[in-house]
Amino acid sequence: MQETKIIQFASDNYVGAHPDIAKIINEAMLTTELPYGQDSYSQKAQLEIQQVFQSDCAVFFIGTGTACNVMALKTMLRSIDAVICSDLAHINGAECGALENFTGSKIFTAKSIDGKINVKAIKEVYNSLNNIHYSKPAAISITQATELGTVYTCEEIKEICNFAHSHNLYVHMDGARLANAAAALNNSLKEMVTDTGVDILSFGATKNGALIAEAAVIFNKKLAKDFNYIQKQSMQLFSKMRIIPAQFIAYLQNDLWLNNAKNANTKCKMIAEGLSHCKNLKILNSVETNQIFIELPITLKDEILKTYYLYVSNENIDKKTCVIRLITSYNTSLNDANKLISDFKSLDYNFSLLNN
Amino acid sequence: MQETKIIQFASDNYVGAHPDIAKIINEAMLTTELPYGQDSYSQKAQLEIQQVFQSDCAVFFIGTGTACNVMALKTMLRSIDAVICSDLAHINGAECGALENFTGSKIFTAKSIDGKINVKAIKEVYNSLNNIHYSKPAAISITQATELGTVYTCEEIKEICNFAHSHNLYVHMDGARLANAAAALNNSLKEMVTDTGVDILSFGATKNGALIAEAAVIFNKKLAKDFNYIQKQSMQLFSKMRIIPAQFIAYLQNDLWLNNAKNANTKCKMIAEGLSHCKNLKILNSVETNQIFIELPITLKDEILKTYYLYVSNENIDKKTCVIRLITSYNTSLNDANKLISDFKSLDYNFSLLNN
Amino acid sequence: MQETKIIQFASDNYVGAHPDIAKIINEAMLTTELPYGQDSYSQKAQLEIQQVFQSDCAVFFIGTGTACNVMALKTMLRSIDAVICSDLAHINGAECGALENFTGSKIFTAKSIDGKINVKAIKEVYNSLNNIHYSKPAAISITQATELGTVYTCEEIKEICNFAHSHNLYVHMDGARLANAAAALNNSLKEMVTDTGVDILSFGATKNGALIAEAAVIFNKKLAKDFNYIQKQSMQLFSKMRIIPAQFIAYLQNDLWLNNAKNANTKCKMIAEGLSHCKNLKILNSVETNQIFIELPITLKDEILKTYYLYVSNENIDKKTCVIRLITSYNTSLNDANKLISDFKSLDYNFSLLNN
Amino acid sequence: MQETKIIQFASDNYVGAHPDIAKIINEAMLTTELPYGQDSYSQKAQLEIQQVFQSDCAVFFIGTGTACNVMALKTMLRSIDAVICSDLAHINGAECGALENFTGSKIFTAKSIDGKINVKAIKEVYNSLNNIHYSKPAAISITQATELGTVYTCEEIKEICNFAHSHNLYVHMDGARLANAAAALNNSLKEMVTDTGVDILSFGATKNGALIAEAAVIFNKKLAKDFNYIQKQSMQLFSKMRIIPAQFIAYLQNDLWLNNAKNANTKCKMIAEGLSHCKNLKILNSVETNQIFIELPITLKDEILKTYYLYVSNENIDKKTCVIRLITSYNTSLNDANKLISDFKSLDYNFSLLNN
Repeated sequence: MQETKIIQFASDNYVGAHPDIAKIINEAMLTTELPYGQDSYSQKAQLEIQQVFQSDCAVFFIGTGTACNVMALKTMLRSIDAVICSDLAHINGAECGALENFTGSKIFTAKSIDGKINVKAIKEVYNSLNNIHYSKPAAISITQATELGTVYTCEEIKEICNFAHSHNLYVHMDGARLANAAAALNNSLKEMVTDTGVDILSFGATKNGALIAEAAVIFNKKLAKDFNYIQKQSMQLFSKMRIIPAQFIAYLQNDLWLNNAKNANTKCKMIAEGLSHCKNLKILNSVETNQIFIELPITLKDEILKTYYLYVSNENIDKKTCVIRLITSYNTSLNDANKLISDFKSLDYNFSLLNN
Repeated sequence: MQETKIIQFASDNYVGAHPDIAKIINEAMLTTELPYGQDSYSQKAQLEIQQVFQSDCAVFFIGTGTACNVMALKTMLRSIDAVICSDLAHINGAECGALENFTGSKIFTAKSIDGKINVKAIKEVYNSLNNIHYSKPAAISITQATELGTVYTCEEIKEICNFAHSHNLYVHMDGARLANAAAALNNSLKEMVTDTGVDILSFGATKNGALIAEAAVIFNKKLAKDFNYIQKQSMQLFSKMRIIPAQFIAYLQNDLWLNNAKNANTKCKMIAEGLSHCKNLKILNSVETNQIFIELPITLKDEILKTYYLYVSNENIDKKTCVIRLITSYNTSLNDANKLISDFKSLDYNFSLLNN
Repeated sequence: MQETKIIQFASDNYVGAHPDIAKIINEAMLTTELPYGQDSYSQKAQLEIQQVFQSDCAVFFIGTGTACNVMALKTMLRSIDAVICSDLAHINGAECGALENFTGSKIFTAKSIDGKINVKAIKEVYNSLNNIHYSKPAAISITQATELGTVYTCEEIKEICNFAHSHNLYVHMDGARLANAAAALNNSLKEMVTDTGVDILSFGATKNGALIAEAAVIFNKKLAKDFNYIQKQSMQLFSKMRIIPAQFIAYLQNDLWLNNAKNANTKCKMIAEGLSHCKNLKILNSVETNQIFIELPITLKDEILKTYYLYVSNENIDKKTCVIRLITSYNTSLNDANKLISDFKSLDYNFSLLNN
Repeated sequence: MQETKIIQFASDNYVGAHPDIAKIINEAMLTTELPYGQDSYSQKAQLEIQQVFQSDCAVFFIGTGTACNVMALKTMLRSIDAVICSDLAHINGAECGALENFTGSKIFTAKSIDGKINVKAIKEVYNSLNNIHYSKPAAISITQATELGTVYTCEEIKEICNFAHSHNLYVHMDGARLANAAAALNNSLKEMVTDTGVDILSFGATKNGALIAEAAVIFNKKLAKDFNYIQKQSMQLFSKMRIIPAQFIAYLQNDLWLNNAKNANTKCKMIAEGLSHCKNLKILNSVETNQIFIELPITLKDEILKTYYLYVSNENIDKKTCVIRLITSYNTSLNDANKLISDFKSLDYNFSLLNN
């Protein structure tokens, strides 16, 4: 980004790699290693991941979150099968039909509340898929933290896993922002994922300080069979693979993953609290991790975009408001957070003056 | 690789990144940039690529060669269409059915001679696909340099492109080792690709000193329409994309791409010449770039594998021989090449002694 | 069905072929003809269909309604594209993911009102699909008559087509029960389909007196290009094809299609009126063609199923009611209709007695 | 076909239904039955098929041979898997990529000799698919009788099945002309299919006197699981299904299947013998069932096509010859066979006269 004056709260994937991760990339990229995941970094990173999840899970390293989700579901679904997920799920709305094209399978969505789906909503969809004219339900996919930044408790995840397993369904967890959820819940990764019964986790690091680093963590080992073929066919078998597991090694060392997530969450909560008394800015979601959705007068939009990179949705254009999304990152600074609070409070104050 | 005593001639994707490329990665990964290919590196790298090909081609940056090939063909083919390629083509044999699964299309292979296909062989396949019971031929894919390390002349490429275009077919070039071909031919990239009429090039850098860097270079601009959707659906739209175009910027600077390829080719030729008088080692291919296939007594295999990483095929096991593949890299040293020549000559000499 | 005592109102696909259609099948199946749609019946039937639609449309004969829908959409959609349809659409809920698997494309549903979608609902979905993270909207599919038996007016269809074409989308019409809609509207097929701007029609005859007879009627001729390849790849290119177009010839003669539909619609309306004063039977939909959905006390279910074949849904089980679906056919007799009215009225009366 | 003067030896799918089959269609199409394969004809036909194969096989009724093959292989293959078949196999060359698009899987072909593949050729392909860069071999498909009209002996089939099962592969048999093979071998269907170890048979009747009638006969019952979903997703679940099993009931009664095949085979052999002394007509294949491939001077082509429907291939155009394919049918008459012999002998004689 040329204009350093512009401050970015648009997404946690604009920022670069955390220095500790940059350091290990720097080391790994200069070595000679066996290709296609047989390298020493892959072995070490798998051990580290097994350690942190306290599980002898299988691990595969992948380049994008979309690929990780699709590959995880590919091993669960035949084309005649369906996956049930939230109506806000990334796999449904934001992956350009990758699941459908790559697996031939079908997605059915359950109605979410505050970004989450519960067993009642899942059951309703499940019950409607009861003969061969429908696809056969075979998996449930949940996102932790959700697309709205909210978080499933361990108890809620367990309930979904129990329902799933008693109905012969697998559970996939899209953990693109898993660290933020763990930080919010104050639960270990083991408690949140291994102990709840998740079959496969898409373990994302990219949005939390890594560069290009996702891992499919397979707890249900029979789903790991031939997963390396799926990886090759998914066009995700990097020859110089070492670069991805290397990032996970640094990510898991010294609780880097947790500290990064804590910074993002803390700054986000700070902003939410700082803006809580603004009369014209309405925070729409429970701010549990690093996302805030704010509905505000549409006339403020241009002023904000002069200084900030943000996603803006015009969906409430008829109400003369728009919705902005703020996302904090592992390196969002106290300065930037304070400046945003102060700028937004001024805008709110001035808007009140002008409109009363 | 732990054992530094082991010398690797297994593939050009074992080695790490060239220092110049490592340097720019190091810089790019620490910056904040727009995601999903809207970053400043993508813009700059596209300009550099347009410059070197002397074309206003569209450019998309991709993580693996398989993905690049499949995406290029995806924009050319509907599921009812077919692509014609060599019986040795990487897209047919070595991509785990990625093309078939991702596009639904079909591959028909033409018989290769010395790794290359010519218009006669292509025409034979084309003519056999003449009604709706067959898939409809829509594209030809050639590999430059080929899977055997041989090279199409510009004239040969032109002939294929002319046949293709006069029969309403597109031409895709798998250029995983394009630089090695250019170095061998002493032709510019413009002469070899732009001027011959190739519609889309898979421009690989990973095997020639980059880390993870492939680019779809689209000369036929109508094939670029909606290619970004294909990229997203192919699970290849990296959020922190900048890391890939950055590598191309360094790769194209100061002829790094060409010098790297020249080193690999030169060392390979040196080895071929060094071994040319060995009685028991039979070089099977024309050594034009950085690959040598050698048929040798199977009893020598174990001895060789003690010191060298190499691919070995047992396909001639009944003749008591095996075939090994040697690949040189951008950083294959004079020492290693000389040591290999000397070691292999000794093996050959001793084998003759013992068997006469 | 062995038990003739059981009367069927379960679906319009339980009954056999109308005698006029049986007659032509009988003739066609004994002749020698060119295979794969080059037969004389195909030629004649295409002319008849062009005549009735007053259009030089292209016509392809197909074995199942699902296949017809999927093939029509296949020629409109690349895998990166999406089709927008009703949340009740057969292509979404009742075709076992055939569209997703065969085309790789994605379905997005718009909220239906009384079984129909309008431009407002479509626009909302369309507007949400506005960047490469979503599939690209390319088609709208509507069902006429709808899955609830309701009917779009010609004006409503035109509005949808106008919106579609001004936004670069195609329009597909699933006409599994098209004849029933035409009979209900008292519009010609030309007025309802050709004149409204539909691009491709799935013209179903099976549910209205044919045996196995569907036709893809392509008004937008550029979508007919290579459709015969799609037919072959869809596994729908019957060698002894003549049997399908033959049915259409009889179907269109002497307004058989219309008279059949009129009988079904009339009997259905008769039943709806006959039951309109029942206190415990609640008709849920506007009865416009040949389907009635009735919510009734769940305790009546078993009694009804002793005499009638019907689809029953338990979805309101918590309210102690169930929903039954009645479908009348081209050969539903006055006797059966009257008997059903009389039986249901008794059940209603007795239930009131017992529960008051 | 308008011109009754023209005699057809083009294919066994030009002719209509055998009168016994027409009769049962006529009966079945007028009844009311449960839809989607739950009808009484389906039950009865399954029993008849189980009887003739002496097996408790599962049976599904299907509309086209291509669909039957693709569905059989779909239940055997994931997209990462491959099927090995003959280089002449219908599934590879003549089904417009249906397998690839519907299953995402890949076909690898083994070299055929006289239309057949043997374990040696299969093994060569199998051995080459030995790591994750290739698709994983999971099935072998053979055609009985072959695309050249030749026949595998029971012993040859057993060898292939034994190899397959000892290598964890399934065996599919494309039996589009199975009856002709049985007639040629003088083996029962049980001996040829059940006893040899075939996992799934595509049991075709259409080419041997039926109208539209194929059946997937599944001997390996675990492959039958969820096959009804595959049928629905394949767009092959006909609502008025009864029409297909009805044909099988008549087909299996009074050995109609066998007698039909015997007539075709006998007439074919008669022709082959009748032409065996012609100097300018070269029969290319072993005539074992109902197909003859004849290479003849290209100048005779037009004369032949005046009187006969035949497939002609120009592949030997440089040798001034062409290849014609003659196929006899269940109802090929003695008259037509004799006339063809006589006509062809005259042509041969005259050609000799003119060219000596």
